Amino acid sequence: MAGPIMTRAEVESYLNEVFPQLSIDGPVYRVEAVGEQTARLHMTISNRHLRPGGTVSGPSLMGLADLAFYVALLGAIGPVALAVTTNLSFHFLRKPEPRDLVGDARLLKVGKRLAVGEVVIFNAGSSDPVCHATGTYAIPPRAVVG
Amino acid sequence: MAGPIMTRAEVESYLNEVFPQLSIDGPVYRVEAVGEQTARLHMTISNRHLRPGGTVSGPSLMGLADLAFYVALLGAIGPVALAVTTNLSFHFLRKPEPRDLVGDARLLKVGKRLAVGEVVIFNAGSSDPVCHATGTYAIPPRAVVG
Amino acid sequence: MAGPIMTRAEVESYLNEVFPQLSIDGPVYRVEAVGEQTARLHMTISNRHLRPGGTVSGPSLMGLADLAFYVALLGAIGPVALAVTTNLSFHFLRKPEPRDLVGDARLLKVGKRLAVGEVVIFNAGSSDPVCHATGTYAIPPRAVVG
Amino acid sequence: MAGPIMTRAEVESYLNEVFPQLSIDGPVYRVEAVGEQTARLHMTISNRHLRPGGTVSGPSLMGLADLAFYVALLGAIGPVALAVTTNLSFHFLRKPEPRDLVGDARLLKVGKRLAVGEVVIFNAGSSDPVCHATGTYAIPPRAVVG
Repeated sequence: MAGPIMTRAEVESYLNEVFPQLSIDGPVYRVEAVGEQTARLHMTISNRHLRPGGTVSGPSLMGLADLAFYVALLGAIGPVALAVTTNLSFHFLRKPEPRDLVGDARLLKVGKRLAVGEVVIFNAGSSDPVCHATGTYAIPPRAVVG
Repeated sequence: MAGPIMTRAEVESYLNEVFPQLSIDGPVYRVEAVGEQTARLHMTISNRHLRPGGTVSGPSLMGLADLAFYVALLGAIGPVALAVTTNLSFHFLRKPEPRDLVGDARLLKVGKRLAVGEVVIFNAGSSDPVCHATGTYAIPPRAVVG
Repeated sequence: MAGPIMTRAEVESYLNEVFPQLSIDGPVYRVEAVGEQTARLHMTISNRHLRPGGTVSGPSLMGLADLAFYVALLGAIGPVALAVTTNLSFHFLRKPEPRDLVGDARLLKVGKRLAVGEVVIFNAGSSDPVCHATGTYAIPPRAVVG
Repeated sequence: MAGPIMTRAEVESYLNEVFPQLSIDGPVYRVEAVGEQTARLHMTISNRHLRPGGTVSGPSLMGLADLAFYVALLGAIGPVALAVTTNLSFHFLRKPEPRDLVGDARLLKVGKRLAVGEVVIFNAGSSDPVCHATGTYAIPPRAVVG
């Protein structure tokens, strides 16, 4: 246990370079922390993420979970642009309030070929989870070193 | 078995009214068909939906599945703006090509309190599924009538 | 927060009465703890639970998770023989060793109509999870009080 | 498309040899059909599979789905005793009646490293699905050949 392979700042600059579409409407996601097998992301909610009844859309929650999971993986195994999500499963627990969200990712297993993790999403400042997600990533065989 | 409760056109105008955020960047989703317990949606892919390696992002697939499922539910039980997705589960089968997608939703069960269904997503014109999703909706108790 | 509605002993005697099939081959499950929204179960592994390569079968893990979840629900809302599992989702993280298992259940949400929770399974005495499960229970409307 | 790699009879004798625990209480599962990427299994329900209210237990359904999936995989890629289930996800659609079940498995993808499929379970003779399952298998790298 020696800390993450990429620092918070390295992860953020990597995301900006490799996934420019994430900030196509201005900055939405901010990496708050990266641990050895964990990550915390902050998502700024704007009008495009809202739904009737004053809540955040399901796809916004799912996008946050997907990215938080990926950042935890970057911290655990480094830049693996070709790692592939093989499944994601979401439980929507409570209606989020129409304001910023935080996603906490934690890897449950990092194997040679598969990584499995979970993400819990909260409204920023709240401790009631609004969404619980689990997922699996396939890790490509390293052709050369890595 | 008497056909859907809402026609294709009624569903489209309902979505435009209730979910204006869906077309905040111009029209993305087109309802192609609504059956009694089925729906087909077409999604126009643009730069914001792309990811490195020339593919469509996971959240784009998840948003399409979520909406296709909801449209099938509109056809089956009518406008239920307050129906709530309780879970969604995705298997990502193949890397989609960076072009338009079609989502085919089919309800497996429509009960009084829960509806369960599946969605299969293809690149338009292809028959190889790129994503398979299942999900559950909680149907609110009817205040009036029954 | 006032502790579980049923004690450990009450849960065990309830299970024996309502689910006699669980011990059709002798005692398999032992309730180790019941909290307000948590439960810990111990599963005695015997030959019938094994699989080639010296591991515990997937269905044994799934049965343990299902029951641990149900016991947590008993602790949270009391005897609800008619509560219905609506979905269960499992990630198999590591091959369990062919010996006893422990399942730790924790409810993430207990609503009026749905409860959602997660279960983590370990070999007894180990801290490496072998299986992670999430699930949803539908809680029937109370005909009379409750 | 040239038919399954193993015939129905080959699959049945392989299961008896490799998984003797499946019939520890007498024959429970019968392989009814194996196609190139499909399988149909019949499960004989006895007292041990029942639950209060006169229904079949969740773990019985999950065991049937797991095995039906595995048999479809045998048909598609041959005997792979070391293939590993990485996840399984179940939607319980209706309460099964307390009698025999049939599980229909269909693979959605058979890749080099992962296979994904779905299983639908019915009471024998009924066309109303009682359970829908999806799952993923990790396929081990082939030591020889390829």
